[in-house]
Amino acid sequence: MDSIAIQDTYPDDVAHCYGCGRLNAHGHHVRTFWEGDETISTFTPKPWHTAVPGFVYGGLIASLVDCHSTGTAAAAAYRAQDREPGTEPALRFVTGSLRVDYLRPTPLGTVLTIRARVREIKGRKVIVESTVFAQGVVTATGEVVAVQMPAGFGRDTQVSTA
Amino acid sequence: MDSIAIQDTYPDDVAHCYGCGRLNAHGHHVRTFWEGDETISTFTPKPWHTAVPGFVYGGLIASLVDCHSTGTAAAAAYRAQDREPGTEPALRFVTGSLRVDYLRPTPLGTVLTIRARVREIKGRKVIVESTVFAQGVVTATGEVVAVQMPAGFGRDTQVSTA
Repeated sequence: MDSIAIQDTYPDDVAHCYGCGRLNAHGHHVRTFWEGDETISTFTPKPWHTAVPGFVYGGLIASLVDCHSTGTAAAAAYRAQDREPGTEPALRFVTGSLRVDYLRPTPLGTVLTIRARVREIKGRKVIVESTVFAQGVVTATGEVVAVQMPAGFGRDTQVSTA
Repeated sequence: MDSIAIQDTYPDDVAHCYGCGRLNAHGHHVRTFWEGDETISTFTPKPWHTAVPGFVYGGLIASLVDCHSTGTAAAAAYRAQDREPGTEPALRFVTGSLRVDYLRPTPLGTVLTIRARVREIKGRKVIVESTVFAQGVVTATGEVVAVQMPAGFGRDTQVSTA
């Protein structure tokens, strides 16, 4: 497994994400690594990340899926261009759409593993499928359409997944 | 608008949700109210709930959609049974699936409004559609399949949306 996560290579001005930004002091600091053709991320929820006592909050799971998937999209886009992450121009993705299916309750008090694969790269869009495991059991699956962040993001931008 | 949110009526043992539990000291405390045939919830993100600086983290938006939708499902289920929320037996919903479409960046530093409607009640499942507004502009839409929490949730339960 690489020791540098894709999120470690994000330029400073796009490294404040609450889910995965290394410069967000309050955030989750999701970190995404290659493992062969898959990516992997691990996360241990805090005791207060509860749905009902003993189980992980679904919104947190959605956040992990979200950031691990946009990270996977960036990592895959660099690979597709045969470039190292962190080389210029920087590739950073935002979420166009997010879907999570909660298959069973996710136990709290254990490390979660999120694995992802790229289903398709299509222009500026990358479709990423992911699976969330707790103690080796699949508890949720995710699908994210990640869209390469346009220049001027947030100023006059409409993110479209159409 | 009612002054009592549906989440205010959840029994204590299912009121610890990080998104909407009144007994979770660290959580978001999402609160859902009827407004005619719609439900409404408002939330002001914290400064650190960033995607990129100036814009709201998509995982937070997913969390708001999630809890407002399961709350809406509970409220609608009481209505369908012609009962007041908080009467016995308690109706509490978990998320079977969650989908969020991010239509444009959501500005940080302003109150967000989430409106929802029930599309369908089908046995123990309620399908809820929602829309997220910032300063009157739609920034995201959501769809949640909420499933009535089974007795013994998390012990031998598999939540299925099939």
